[in-house]
Amino acid sequence: MAILHHHPFCPHSRFVRLILAELGIEAELVEEKPWERRVPLLELNPAGNLPLLLDDSGLAVPGPAVIAEYLDDTRGPTLGDRRFLPQDPAGRVEVRRLVDWFLGKFHGEVSDYLATEKIYKRFMPLELGGGPPDMSAIRAARANVRYHLKYIGYLIATRNWLAGRHLSYADLAAAAHLSIVDYLGDVPWDEDETAKHWYARIKSRPSFRTLLADRVPGMAPWEHYDNLDF
Amino acid sequence: MAILHHHPFCPHSRFVRLILAELGIEAELVEEKPWERRVPLLELNPAGNLPLLLDDSGLAVPGPAVIAEYLDDTRGPTLGDRRFLPQDPAGRVEVRRLVDWFLGKFHGEVSDYLATEKIYKRFMPLELGGGPPDMSAIRAARANVRYHLKYIGYLIATRNWLAGRHLSYADLAAAAHLSIVDYLGDVPWDEDETAKHWYARIKSRPSFRTLLADRVPGMAPWEHYDNLDF
Repeated sequence: MAILHHHPFCPHSRFVRLILAELGIEAELVEEKPWERRVPLLELNPAGNLPLLLDDSGLAVPGPAVIAEYLDDTRGPTLGDRRFLPQDPAGRVEVRRLVDWFLGKFHGEVSDYLATEKIYKRFMPLELGGGPPDMSAIRAARANVRYHLKYIGYLIATRNWLAGRHLSYADLAAAAHLSIVDYLGDVPWDEDETAKHWYARIKSRPSFRTLLADRVPGMAPWEHYDNLDF
Repeated sequence: MAILHHHPFCPHSRFVRLILAELGIEAELVEEKPWERRVPLLELNPAGNLPLLLDDSGLAVPGPAVIAEYLDDTRGPTLGDRRFLPQDPAGRVEVRRLVDWFLGKFHGEVSDYLATEKIYKRFMPLELGGGPPDMSAIRAARANVRYHLKYIGYLIATRNWLAGRHLSYADLAAAAHLSIVDYLGDVPWDEDETAKHWYARIKSRPSFRTLLADRVPGMAPWEHYDNLDF
């Protein structure tokens, strides 16, 4: 069986868990604390970032974008319309542009700040940066999430899914990153009904279930986190 | 003809210029100042990052990784051994892992600091962050480049090129990012002969010529920047 080294509140790990679930690939989940930089993990992935997929053959595939491409290379061609990177080059550009947006820009401006400040720091030892959250980082993330939500609403206003007609990696990346922010109650859903409906649609998919069951010890989610009709 | 919106000292832009030259694709170069965030450019690429490729058909392809994938999708299959993303899934994982290393990690730890502090800031208006360089950022980049150089040497000690037997996107990404640091004289080449020989090999390729001809107005390059036998 494949093995996924992940953290339940790492948004990149959640993106890959969604892909695996959508593709029906079972994987054993091994929880990692990203701040520990365990040597066995660094031997498999010198960059040390999460998640890391070990496929059935033992091949180590590191990082969310590389894993997504690998799964498209190896599983995509047989999926037809259910392929998360479409066949046509222009469609692939649009999906990758948006994946890059959420794994890069949204992460750097929103989800990394919130996961680090509100979740990881509760569990990190002081000498590795643990302690109380930096409120200015949290305020910045809360301000930034608003224009990302608007951008999602803007795209969905003319498209069925984020990158076009079909569900794609773009939706899975966006929803995975938003799901962390949503756990914390920091998505201003009322500001964009279109984006909210898109999220409700994707949140209702069976692939989302295990994400909605995750809990941060000692920290309850926002009341509508696992409510499919929020 | 294709058009590449770029900056001559943006390392991501240099990566794409190398790919285009290696593939023999002529493109008109349009220089952008990344800090200006011109509206016509933002309309083509809302994320605003460089470079941006407009292909012959007018399709806008934004960002270094998305452009590299697009060129592999559209040109790669006919290139055989000269393909910069190999055919086999494990080979593709290794190339993408290293591209991600240089476009992400090396950029964040080395080339972004140096390009911004030493080059961009000379030309940026004060109100956009221009002014004298932040010496602590430069010191951090100079410390960080040493372990990256060692990592290149470690890989090249057992491989012909960075990701394996053939020249790949990994070499082009690494060399593009290093070339900025090299212009500034901040690569401690003496610390790793193996890495130095690899760089001399890739720097001698015809695709590198236009990069070696670039000059920052008012700032001469390090004396061996365009010396092929440095």
